[in-house]
Amino acid sequence: MTTQQLTEQIIKKKSFLCIGLDVDLNKIPQHLLQTEDPIFEFNKAIIDATHHLCVAYKPNTAFYEAYGLKGWKALEKTINYLNDNHPDIFTIADAKRGDIGNTSTMYAKAFFEDLAFDSVTVAPYMGKDSVEPFLAFKDKHTIMLALTSNQGAFDFQTKQVEGKELYKQVLETSKNWKNSENLMYVVGATKAEYFAEIRKIVPNSFLLVPGVGAQGGNLQDVCKYGMSKNVGLLINSSRGIIYASSNDDFAQAAAAKAEDLQQQMEVVLNNK
Amino acid sequence: MTTQQLTEQIIKKKSFLCIGLDVDLNKIPQHLLQTEDPIFEFNKAIIDATHHLCVAYKPNTAFYEAYGLKGWKALEKTINYLNDNHPDIFTIADAKRGDIGNTSTMYAKAFFEDLAFDSVTVAPYMGKDSVEPFLAFKDKHTIMLALTSNQGAFDFQTKQVEGKELYKQVLETSKNWKNSENLMYVVGATKAEYFAEIRKIVPNSFLLVPGVGAQGGNLQDVCKYGMSKNVGLLINSSRGIIYASSNDDFAQAAAAKAEDLQQQMEVVLNNK
Repeated sequence: MTTQQLTEQIIKKKSFLCIGLDVDLNKIPQHLLQTEDPIFEFNKAIIDATHHLCVAYKPNTAFYEAYGLKGWKALEKTINYLNDNHPDIFTIADAKRGDIGNTSTMYAKAFFEDLAFDSVTVAPYMGKDSVEPFLAFKDKHTIMLALTSNQGAFDFQTKQVEGKELYKQVLETSKNWKNSENLMYVVGATKAEYFAEIRKIVPNSFLLVPGVGAQGGNLQDVCKYGMSKNVGLLINSSRGIIYASSNDDFAQAAAAKAEDLQQQMEVVLNNK
Repeated sequence: MTTQQLTEQIIKKKSFLCIGLDVDLNKIPQHLLQTEDPIFEFNKAIIDATHHLCVAYKPNTAFYEAYGLKGWKALEKTINYLNDNHPDIFTIADAKRGDIGNTSTMYAKAFFEDLAFDSVTVAPYMGKDSVEPFLAFKDKHTIMLALTSNQGAFDFQTKQVEGKELYKQVLETSKNWKNSENLMYVVGATKAEYFAEIRKIVPNSFLLVPGVGAQGGNLQDVCKYGMSKNVGLLINSSRGIIYASSNDDFAQAAAAKAEDLQQQMEVVLNNK
């Protein structure tokens, strides 16, 4: 999928919502545990109830790996279900990978070829040759951590490196990498005031924004400072949507939460 | 496994060699491709031929994920084979994970519980609350990237942050984290002169050292500057050992390469 196609979906659906599919078997409705594949059944119900309200889904690989082979199989079934039934929806493998060149190529094959995701999240610590192997895939997107939404972001990301914060060095440096047009960035919503600074460096790039809702970020502030002329935002909500209810009505409750966010986004888009 | 037990193994085997199990189906002997599980059969043959020469094995998860479900199954069979047959050998899931707190806990469960590895590699970019969930596991070890062996290490890791290089900030900061006694660090062999500086910050920690051989690092230099009073080094070789031959004699050829490194290590240990 191209970024232009993603923007078209945003305009069509009046939504830039991404739903995080972080399935914890301790939190899903108990009746699903009796099915053969509870993780996939949960995801399928959430997707069926919310696909008209969002433009992206983001399974975090940790929640699948924790369940071993069964988890990886559920991840495979989930991405196949999305690609078969909703090919217009942008898919993100939230994997935060990164390794030396030939190894990063193997990760890129895992997420772009074996599992046919549109994008994968990566960590910047190992630099250019750990990220460029991902960027080499045409019409695939590499979403690099810049400023994350957790407290630990202040340990290194906001430290001064040669006159500017590390996350700004990461953004600026990455603009010079080969196929950098395939880069997007993770920027946490809990630090909305940083978006104005970030937009000076990457005015047009898509930003994947976790931290609205459960982690305390504010949608209006993020849009005020972070929206580009082509929207350029994917706002993620995981727990706030998928665990809105732990009863039989969990999918409808998730849809209601997703619709609430979609309608706030529609107001923002109409006023843009 | 405790670090004391690991040190005892090093003294007993006169080796601090770690063998990287990075299985690429394009590089293994062709006759293995006709078996039901070529990745596991390759690993089993390498382990059977080399287990007396090394103290650790390190599968890099990228090479397994690239083959999807079959790959993950081969990884599971490999760690089970190691734990069943060689419980004294230290096992490393080279996964370079890291995410916000509750998500890192899921990764820790994946590698410490579902797959019973002794250790996992993690990336530091997201800071304290992305690493502490791994450190919470008793008698398990978290090996954090400090200074990697690739060219991209110079993009951010060696940049000056408040008066010292980022990798030094990472080392110093991490010493204050909860259960930091469970930390080890990745330090690339291609930068041997850095080891003296690193030992000033973490005099006793184990360092996992990639980059000897294929990436150009020198064993003697690494030992000269990097060895602690309790050895404190795990020197990794992957391609240089496991792809020593692509013929039927691949396992014997791997053992010969491993023995060559082990004997160099024995000389170093005898002169210590």
